[in-house]
Amino acid sequence: MHVRLVLRSLAVLILGLAISLLVSAGVSWLYNERLLPFLIPAGLCAVIGTGFILFLKRDESTVRVQEGVLIVLSSWMVFCLFGLIPFLLMDQPVSFADALFETASGFTTTGSTIFSDVESLPYGILFWRSLTHWLGGMGIIVLAVAILPFFGIGGLQLIRAEAPGPDVERLRPRIAHTARLFWIIYVGLTVLEIILLYFGGLSLFDSVNHSFATLATGGFSTRNASIAAFGNPYVEWVVAVFMVLSGVNFAVYYRFFLKDFQRIIKDSELKAYLILFFSCVLITSFSLHRAGLYSDLGETLRYGSFQVATLMTSTGFATADYVLWPGLAQGILFLLLFVGGCVGSTSGGIKMFHVTVSLKAAVAELRRLRHPRAIIVPRMNSEPLRSPTILSVQGFIFLYLALVLISTIVVASGNIDLETSLTATLAAIGNIGPGFSRVGPVENFGFFPDYVKIWLSFVMIAGRLEIYTILILLIPRFPGKPQLSFRYNR
Amino acid sequence: MHVRLVLRSLAVLILGLAISLLVSAGVSWLYNERLLPFLIPAGLCAVIGTGFILFLKRDESTVRVQEGVLIVLSSWMVFCLFGLIPFLLMDQPVSFADALFETASGFTTTGSTIFSDVESLPYGILFWRSLTHWLGGMGIIVLAVAILPFFGIGGLQLIRAEAPGPDVERLRPRIAHTARLFWIIYVGLTVLEIILLYFGGLSLFDSVNHSFATLATGGFSTRNASIAAFGNPYVEWVVAVFMVLSGVNFAVYYRFFLKDFQRIIKDSELKAYLILFFSCVLITSFSLHRAGLYSDLGETLRYGSFQVATLMTSTGFATADYVLWPGLAQGILFLLLFVGGCVGSTSGGIKMFHVTVSLKAAVAELRRLRHPRAIIVPRMNSEPLRSPTILSVQGFIFLYLALVLISTIVVASGNIDLETSLTATLAAIGNIGPGFSRVGPVENFGFFPDYVKIWLSFVMIAGRLEIYTILILLIPRFPGKPQLSFRYNR
Repeated sequence: MHVRLVLRSLAVLILGLAISLLVSAGVSWLYNERLLPFLIPAGLCAVIGTGFILFLKRDESTVRVQEGVLIVLSSWMVFCLFGLIPFLLMDQPVSFADALFETASGFTTTGSTIFSDVESLPYGILFWRSLTHWLGGMGIIVLAVAILPFFGIGGLQLIRAEAPGPDVERLRPRIAHTARLFWIIYVGLTVLEIILLYFGGLSLFDSVNHSFATLATGGFSTRNASIAAFGNPYVEWVVAVFMVLSGVNFAVYYRFFLKDFQRIIKDSELKAYLILFFSCVLITSFSLHRAGLYSDLGETLRYGSFQVATLMTSTGFATADYVLWPGLAQGILFLLLFVGGCVGSTSGGIKMFHVTVSLKAAVAELRRLRHPRAIIVPRMNSEPLRSPTILSVQGFIFLYLALVLISTIVVASGNIDLETSLTATLAAIGNIGPGFSRVGPVENFGFFPDYVKIWLSFVMIAGRLEIYTILILLIPRFPGKPQLSFRYNR
Repeated sequence: MHVRLVLRSLAVLILGLAISLLVSAGVSWLYNERLLPFLIPAGLCAVIGTGFILFLKRDESTVRVQEGVLIVLSSWMVFCLFGLIPFLLMDQPVSFADALFETASGFTTTGSTIFSDVESLPYGILFWRSLTHWLGGMGIIVLAVAILPFFGIGGLQLIRAEAPGPDVERLRPRIAHTARLFWIIYVGLTVLEIILLYFGGLSLFDSVNHSFATLATGGFSTRNASIAAFGNPYVEWVVAVFMVLSGVNFAVYYRFFLKDFQRIIKDSELKAYLILFFSCVLITSFSLHRAGLYSDLGETLRYGSFQVATLMTSTGFATADYVLWPGLAQGILFLLLFVGGCVGSTSGGIKMFHVTVSLKAAVAELRRLRHPRAIIVPRMNSEPLRSPTILSVQGFIFLYLALVLISTIVVASGNIDLETSLTATLAAIGNIGPGFSRVGPVENFGFFPDYVKIWLSFVMIAGRLEIYTILILLIPRFPGKPQLSFRYNR
């Protein structure tokens, strides 16, 4: 284990965190608020980051699987630990467990909050919450494009198909280029939403915050009533559309710019994502219409599609308290707590790619039983879907659901009812935000015992890192021989 | 499709049903109750069964996959349709949906009831309910040993390993022999429990009914308070032990008689089953002890192990209203709603075999990520676990969970809360009986809308037939060539 390598990589990220904290301090300065809650952690980060870089010699060795995983995992943890300091130093500070939960919820783009009254928070803190979302979203994209693929985890199957082979040295510039393009798309969409919201009548502050939270599929809002507070159908539609856009694999936009429309049309995951989205909107709206909850069809569709979009993309904004909706609509939303958006997006959950692969594999099994002598090969994006891919995907889904059940037990052990325990877990592991029952869209997570908050923070990070990334560290190392390795881009 | 073949096979089963109805009529006669509710359907079955056999010519063709599946599926449906007649003809008859639900719940060994006061039911009807369990349990064992293996579904992997090859003709006598031995074990254990309960102070009627329901892991009781009504710790322990015994793969007892202890010790599923059972008892009892619910440790352990056994083996008897238990204990019981007992037993759920295979496969995936160059082969019962087996098992689990989510939506559409909808579904598909919230152990399923009762009856049958068996019929037939086929034992 090359500890120096891990620490030096972390140092660069910590310096980035210092800058982000300074930006939040700038916002506080604009609104004449206390700057210390941000300057203290920013200074701390600057000193530690610079110290590591100055005093640790460069380590030219290559990053192996366990070091790569350790860098990813520890960077998320370090960000949470430094990022929670402003919540401890602000005017009405919260407990450590609360601060950790809020920060983990921010960086993992979950969006669950422990605050019952966010409108009483300082502007600097509100901006910091949104910024954690946005940075977290960026981190996920790097992770999905540039890091996880090397470990054979997550969205990789799509990216790997593009990679010419195991020659990582030659691949590196291309991956750096792809990551840069993905960032440009991310920033571009954010700016576009800010402009659209601003022209819809929102203040610049609200526009920026909600756009950060949308693109990251996070869900923190500056208002207690979330998006519903604006009472503005135009704003609701803009946010709904951008949520759906943010749940799409960014590779689709990348291909759009390359004018590679053929592959977009063939994209099985995108197709499944859109079919599921529109079917759920339809059924939900039908259920709302039958119950006569909203005055006309336009309103029904608006509320239906917003809530479907917010849960399916794991954002977590709200324009309605769906816990009060009729059973059918609630059932559909409950289903969406499992599904999530596409891989290579900022959304969480099991993700459409994994769901689609599993579904195709299961149907292939059925066809094999029906026709024992036939050779049956399921296809994804018009390419054959091979057993190793299916096994990897189904292993992920199994571990995901096993963690859901274990976490439900841990949350329930705080004497929380089952529906709350299960949906709080689904909301945490899927990085969604709200659940049902006592963690519905107008509730908050403040009432949980401290140990449950800390556990859920861990679950959010586990979900964000696709579980494998965390569990892989528990697998013992074989003695002897080095493993397949690559040089990490320091 | 050889319709004659399917109908003639059904006819034999229908004649068996006629005899079972006559036995129940006999019980009614003993208690001076009306006999017509049983004599009418018995007569109907006798006429139809004999008619089919007399007027349909023998069909010597071989049974192919779709015919085999159709025989299995339609026999379950026909049993439910004829078996519900006594509920329509008894003194205080119930609606068709209620009667169907109760009968499906009986034959699938689920044990959910629509009756709020079973103690007011005639003895004949009570006996008929228990008998549907016992016959259903027997049917499942035939299914697991003699039919599903040919289709590559369910517990087969264990059985197939014993089979010398695809030469079905030569295998048939051996399978018939195995099935007979399994029945002897089933009957033997039933008689043993009847004797033990009778000597524990229960009436012969109660002993027989509860033994039928235990061995089938069904759960219908003759008392409103289920086993709790007897207030007899000895009876509770006897039932608990027999529930655990009934959740074990019957092949284990078969091997026990063959003195093949080596394979019993190596049995990964049995190991996992026992480890999970005792861990859950431990955690549940700890939770109950911490909450100070019961006076001493013995009582705590008794209530803890009974409720763990009843849900894990999918029986559904109750000695405590666990909906009022502390969160941790409820969380553990919720987990058990998914798991189920062993394959080749009468229990339902996903089953330990499938859970163990998936867990081993997922751990193997993790190890592969950690050591990309190593060749990693998971093992089950000391034999290598091959990809086709894993894919088949994981396909089953995926379809099982997909059906759980779809069914939750269907149930919720009756404006039922999510916790009830989800756990009622889990109780139905896992053939368990009670769930949580409004379908807890002291509640009943009477309040559901009719269409939900009919849907849940379908879900029980789908769960009982391992889902594949039903879905396989939806797969279109290839044109041309016949498939792998075998001669069915008419």
